[in-house]
Amino acid sequence: MPHDIFILTEAELRKSVRLDMNAVRVVEQAFAALGTGKVIMPPILSMAIPEAHGEVDVKTAYIPGFEGFAIKVSPGFFDNPKLGLPSLNGLMILFSAKTGLVEALLLDNGYLTDVRTAAAGAVAAKHLAPREVGTAGVMGTGVQARLQIEAAHLVRPFRRVLVWGRDTSKAEACARDIAERLGIEARAEADPARLVAESQLVVTTTPAEEPVLKAEWLHPGLHITAMGSDQEKKNEVAPGALIKADLYVADRVSQCERLGELRAAIAAGLWKGGTPPELGEIVNGRPGRTSEEQITICDLTGTGAQDTAIATFALGEAKKAGAGKVIQS
Amino acid sequence: MPHDIFILTEAELRKSVRLDMNAVRVVEQAFAALGTGKVIMPPILSMAIPEAHGEVDVKTAYIPGFEGFAIKVSPGFFDNPKLGLPSLNGLMILFSAKTGLVEALLLDNGYLTDVRTAAAGAVAAKHLAPREVGTAGVMGTGVQARLQIEAAHLVRPFRRVLVWGRDTSKAEACARDIAERLGIEARAEADPARLVAESQLVVTTTPAEEPVLKAEWLHPGLHITAMGSDQEKKNEVAPGALIKADLYVADRVSQCERLGELRAAIAAGLWKGGTPPELGEIVNGRPGRTSEEQITICDLTGTGAQDTAIATFALGEAKKAGAGKVIQS
Repeated sequence: MPHDIFILTEAELRKSVRLDMNAVRVVEQAFAALGTGKVIMPPILSMAIPEAHGEVDVKTAYIPGFEGFAIKVSPGFFDNPKLGLPSLNGLMILFSAKTGLVEALLLDNGYLTDVRTAAAGAVAAKHLAPREVGTAGVMGTGVQARLQIEAAHLVRPFRRVLVWGRDTSKAEACARDIAERLGIEARAEADPARLVAESQLVVTTTPAEEPVLKAEWLHPGLHITAMGSDQEKKNEVAPGALIKADLYVADRVSQCERLGELRAAIAAGLWKGGTPPELGEIVNGRPGRTSEEQITICDLTGTGAQDTAIATFALGEAKKAGAGKVIQS
Repeated sequence: MPHDIFILTEAELRKSVRLDMNAVRVVEQAFAALGTGKVIMPPILSMAIPEAHGEVDVKTAYIPGFEGFAIKVSPGFFDNPKLGLPSLNGLMILFSAKTGLVEALLLDNGYLTDVRTAAAGAVAAKHLAPREVGTAGVMGTGVQARLQIEAAHLVRPFRRVLVWGRDTSKAEACARDIAERLGIEARAEADPARLVAESQLVVTTTPAEEPVLKAEWLHPGLHITAMGSDQEKKNEVAPGALIKADLYVADRVSQCERLGELRAAIAAGLWKGGTPPELGEIVNGRPGRTSEEQITICDLTGTGAQDTAIATFALGEAKKAGAGKVIQS
């Protein structure tokens, strides 16, 4: 039946939603809801199109109390840069959770995913990193390398950033961007072992299929957020590190077992920790880090609950700002 | 990255795409592609929202040679009629299969799903029903009861239609609509056994969880298309009928095993037929019905390949007609 649908473009969404503490709180609430066990979140739909070096993921979740649920479609086509296009794109569709009618089309080209993914890193750092973080390290040099550091800085205002990447010039460019954005010292570090040694917080943001962070580099007072692995082949953190850490936390156990760092640790036969805690449970008060000296790891694969939360927030903010247009379907 | 997106409304799509032989050929081509084994079609994403008596399914498929692939979102919220809204809604999104960019938003509120579902019934009838069909029977009285008969009539121009439903007045209304639409005799039949006895083609279109069509009603020269079951609890055709038939055909074996009539036959311990043929293989020339006297059954759960095919066709037809508008994302 024809009805009104609200349409928001990427430019409008970039004005309405920024990577700030409001976004972090929205995503923290999504994790809190996940932690209650009442969110309905089906397995991710995933389709690879090998001949185009492409893939598409669809995520969704229903959060009780929310008026709508988002369906988020994330295509990643990795030959796009050759065409002058970004690899990652997509949109979010917000449906009424009462009637299933399409309420809004958020044509964000992946922007809201960038924000909610970085915000999840801030939630992990807020609840798991040592209180005092002087230096933060980031492995990887892409969009999320920049955004994860920006987000983490909201909750742990570190004074220095180290950036490691396979390509030194990209690491230097990333460090320059971070220094400019946050107004703090940031530099490329060619030795990943030294990066980890000098950091209290490390975020891994790579598409690595072989670990880039070794277990022997772990040291007291370190928190690692691994956010790069979201597919069965990927693995950023050496499986032994999950065993060596005092605490391993999943964003969603069922996803991390299949797509996260936990998958590799299970495959290596090393994981004997049973069912690990989820970030949402820690947000809700389950003990996380219990001393500054502990070593903690948080494994982020990305949840549909984050999508529903950020889409709902974005629609509300855009409407407040008078942005967007209405189309009759 | 902002780019142009083509938007089509339900009204525009209804003008561009009709349930005619063009639509049937488009869906037949989708099955032919499925039959080659080269289509990439991941499992359906499905989420139930019990507190709203709702569910949402997401389907997709990549068909080699097609420029785009559709993601189809189908919400079903079964308390909607109390609010004066249809239960089924949704939209299709067409993405470039080369770049993953959103190409078009087809705001069809489920219309294209109605068409491609009915067209699949016509494909099944074309390839499996006896050549001579004098009477067609339909079980169920909803939108698909009407459309399945309309579609089947394109390929088997029967002279008479019988309609059975639990609610006699709905069956009568459905028969009146069909008679008016097709200009042929159509009447409600209160006895489903008699409906089957007098028909050479029967389409079941109900949400039944207990079989409405019994195995002992099968008779030589009958084809049954069962299209109502698309969830794990549903079952329209008695499991024994699948054994008694000379030929059982699935639209997609992996889906029918989980969601179709085949599921119930397997659960009942009756199915010993190994892997059944798929409709696409029959389209491509695998032997189907080999005599007028045989009994055949086709199990339709609905495939993402149909969605990609109809969405691609709809976009092309709409562009030819100059319909739609462009929005910058």
